[in-house]
Amino acid sequence: MKLKVKILKFVAGRPVSILHKKTADKIGVNIDDRISLNKNKKRIISVVDIARGILKEDEIVVSDEIVKALQLKKNDFLDINIAPHPESVELIYKKLMCKPLSETELKKIIKDIVKNALTEPEIAYFVSAIYKCGMSIQEIKYLIKAIVDTGETLRLKGKVADKHSIGGVAGNRTTPIVVSICSSAGLIMPKTSSRAITSAAGTADVIESVAKVEFSSSQLYKILKKTKACMVWGGSLGLAPADDKIIQIERLLNLDPEPQLLSSILAKKLSVNSNYVLIDIPYGKSAKVSRKKALSLKKKFEKLSKIFNINLKCILTDGSQPIGNGIGPILEIRDVLSVLKQSPERPLDLEKKSLKLASFLLEMTGKAKKGQGMELAKKILQSGKAFSKFKEIIKAQGGHLNNLKLGEFFQDIVAKKSGKVIEIDNKKINFLARILGSPTDKGAGIYLYKHLKDNVKRKEKLLTFYSESERKLREALKFYKKIKPIKIS
Amino acid sequence: MKLKVKILKFVAGRPVSILHKKTADKIGVNIDDRISLNKNKKRIISVVDIARGILKEDEIVVSDEIVKALQLKKNDFLDINIAPHPESVELIYKKLMCKPLSETELKKIIKDIVKNALTEPEIAYFVSAIYKCGMSIQEIKYLIKAIVDTGETLRLKGKVADKHSIGGVAGNRTTPIVVSICSSAGLIMPKTSSRAITSAAGTADVIESVAKVEFSSSQLYKILKKTKACMVWGGSLGLAPADDKIIQIERLLNLDPEPQLLSSILAKKLSVNSNYVLIDIPYGKSAKVSRKKALSLKKKFEKLSKIFNINLKCILTDGSQPIGNGIGPILEIRDVLSVLKQSPERPLDLEKKSLKLASFLLEMTGKAKKGQGMELAKKILQSGKAFSKFKEIIKAQGGHLNNLKLGEFFQDIVAKKSGKVIEIDNKKINFLARILGSPTDKGAGIYLYKHLKDNVKRKEKLLTFYSESERKLREALKFYKKIKPIKIS
Repeated sequence: MKLKVKILKFVAGRPVSILHKKTADKIGVNIDDRISLNKNKKRIISVVDIARGILKEDEIVVSDEIVKALQLKKNDFLDINIAPHPESVELIYKKLMCKPLSETELKKIIKDIVKNALTEPEIAYFVSAIYKCGMSIQEIKYLIKAIVDTGETLRLKGKVADKHSIGGVAGNRTTPIVVSICSSAGLIMPKTSSRAITSAAGTADVIESVAKVEFSSSQLYKILKKTKACMVWGGSLGLAPADDKIIQIERLLNLDPEPQLLSSILAKKLSVNSNYVLIDIPYGKSAKVSRKKALSLKKKFEKLSKIFNINLKCILTDGSQPIGNGIGPILEIRDVLSVLKQSPERPLDLEKKSLKLASFLLEMTGKAKKGQGMELAKKILQSGKAFSKFKEIIKAQGGHLNNLKLGEFFQDIVAKKSGKVIEIDNKKINFLARILGSPTDKGAGIYLYKHLKDNVKRKEKLLTFYSESERKLREALKFYKKIKPIKIS
Repeated sequence: MKLKVKILKFVAGRPVSILHKKTADKIGVNIDDRISLNKNKKRIISVVDIARGILKEDEIVVSDEIVKALQLKKNDFLDINIAPHPESVELIYKKLMCKPLSETELKKIIKDIVKNALTEPEIAYFVSAIYKCGMSIQEIKYLIKAIVDTGETLRLKGKVADKHSIGGVAGNRTTPIVVSICSSAGLIMPKTSSRAITSAAGTADVIESVAKVEFSSSQLYKILKKTKACMVWGGSLGLAPADDKIIQIERLLNLDPEPQLLSSILAKKLSVNSNYVLIDIPYGKSAKVSRKKALSLKKKFEKLSKIFNINLKCILTDGSQPIGNGIGPILEIRDVLSVLKQSPERPLDLEKKSLKLASFLLEMTGKAKKGQGMELAKKILQSGKAFSKFKEIIKAQGGHLNNLKLGEFFQDIVAKKSGKVIEIDNKKINFLARILGSPTDKGAGIYLYKHLKDNVKRKEKLLTFYSESERKLREALKFYKKIKPIKIS
């Protein structure tokens, strides 16, 4: 079938063709199907999108990727055919049948994900396959290699260290404190973080409230040359683009299959060349994993670290409640600053956990002798050296520490009865903070006055909700009554 | 976050918002994520698409569905938030954990599929869940009810009959012959068919080479009033829109989970009010199912037919090779016509199977006494009544039988050695016909001179390839050498 090209000047990130609904019906294709576009002897495979209104039945709107590849001009004619899917689709089918994939096969899938040759539903089938069938350590190894090989890598010299939490705990913003302490002690810490997926804020969202977090890898080299540490968003660096894409599809259903969790974390560490890695696995009620799952993860992390020759340690931590007082980007950066400044009202649970993580890293890397990491970490924090380092990094990332304004609409929530706090649900707290506008609205979130086992009196403040919109505040209050994130006995 | 509305006048079939890549990164959303768009007190949930070039960072392009719902004008501002996913996503997750779904829960999923509230990858997760976990007869019952309830239905009086093949056999165009015979005998046959999914042509594609197949349900009523039978494409009638959408996602991976196959077929029969249904289950090498699977399907069809109170019969037929000589829309309609016209060179295998299917339907419906269906079917076919009926239907669907032109580029393929034909692979034949341009190019396809167990001499013709493009012909010839669809011993 021949269609006339209509050019609309848009870059879609991959070859996309928009067909008129009637034309798509006639050819028998639908959204996310593939067609091949042929002009003279050139051919390109494109994903189908369908619309009406912007084009006529005998027209085709093509993205810039196609215009360039086929050197198209307005009113050119294209010959359209249904295209067979790439071989990697057969391999996804194979995995969905629970058959193991070889190194070459996994590489094919990952390559096609990176070059956008696989569509979102096809990647969803891949994720389902991993979820339902699992993967052997061998397959996970191949997956990690494929993810690293198809992305950019940073090559840094020296003791490159990283700390990573598997997530699930509200607040818990230890990274900026750990990075500041450890890089003060001489470790190189190219910390790349994600944005929030289901939580109120990711480290990248939090740092973004005081500095830029999106850099190209050449910009990042410059920053690292200066400060030996950074706290940036991993997404713009192209370190593990396959992983970013897979995570995007996983989060639609909040899936997090273990093989993918392992490969995601390790691929990102390998691509920044980390040779010392500390993994924080919070477990417990309302955390991401149970103690049993945490132990199984630890075992697999250790196995894989031997395969890839990384010095890796996992620590299991208490993930049964939020850590720190602030939940939401600016609220969390305020917690971080009060620890770094050693203010009297700083959240001690956040400080304690950060010192623990830092002390492990310092001992692993030989910056402190065995048993002396905590002492060194405390010294660096209390002396103000960590805070200086933090400011240095923020400045290098084009930021400053003014203007930490919370949402102008706020509401205190008080206890309905006296008693002891027996539950603070991470998931519910994160959910409410998101309703309030976090992480997009930097000043939105929740301030927590109490932690587990604290005594509380009737009418005493439990929480303050902050939002940048009155409507969101009202909505969060409505949900608060429904889901009750805090229990008092 | 506030963004300025840019109107581009396009209907996407559901609310779609295009964000600038940088803005999407900032909010932390990606293709197929959901955002809520708020203006004054109105709100709508939209799926995200991402582009650059057609819009600036502070702009948002919205589809007509959104313009209408929020009554937007150019340069209006919209407040954008990340939106939670609909409850049906949790239910898909539940099914992926292999937990059974209730009637209400399945209805929620199906409703959201119909109103486009679920994205393609989410539906892929649903399909994976059904594929990996299966469904009880109870769940399949709920699924069928939900699919029927969310679509249009035809209410026809009298003995409404249908025949359906589960597919997989190349050629096999029995439907036009069976419909012509049985409606000549007085049965009402509102036959809706699909287009090809992986085969060379579906019944809708074949009929489309001589008549229109896309009608609204009111147009269809008019046709049926006149002729008591039709052969149309089911897709434009909105009979089971959820099923159409699920099939679209299944075919990305060529999945066809049994519960979905059962519900798809029965939902479509229920929605046209068929009270007599004959199901053809071809089995064997290179067919869709093995004999074992065919028997299991038969059992389940029969169980479900009791639940829904339909008079249903399954027959298992030989699906180990193509049926008829033509593979491709015009080639297949030529076969059909030669049977209806009783030409001497008609394909007898196609005639025999069509008569068998027709005889079963005539007996099931009481149009013939037990054991006398074949006689009646033959009489109707040989007398020319079936052919008259066929012409009547084609005319009512705005068609005619002239102009059955095959592709102008063709090539004979001859046997390399003498011997007996021991294999003709359905899948490979279908694949080659598609490469040749079928079903989009109506005149493209394959003519088969031999069937299983036929003797063949060296250099005797085995096949003729037809195509409307020289390039496609060359490509098919290249593939032919690689995949060898016919074996001679």
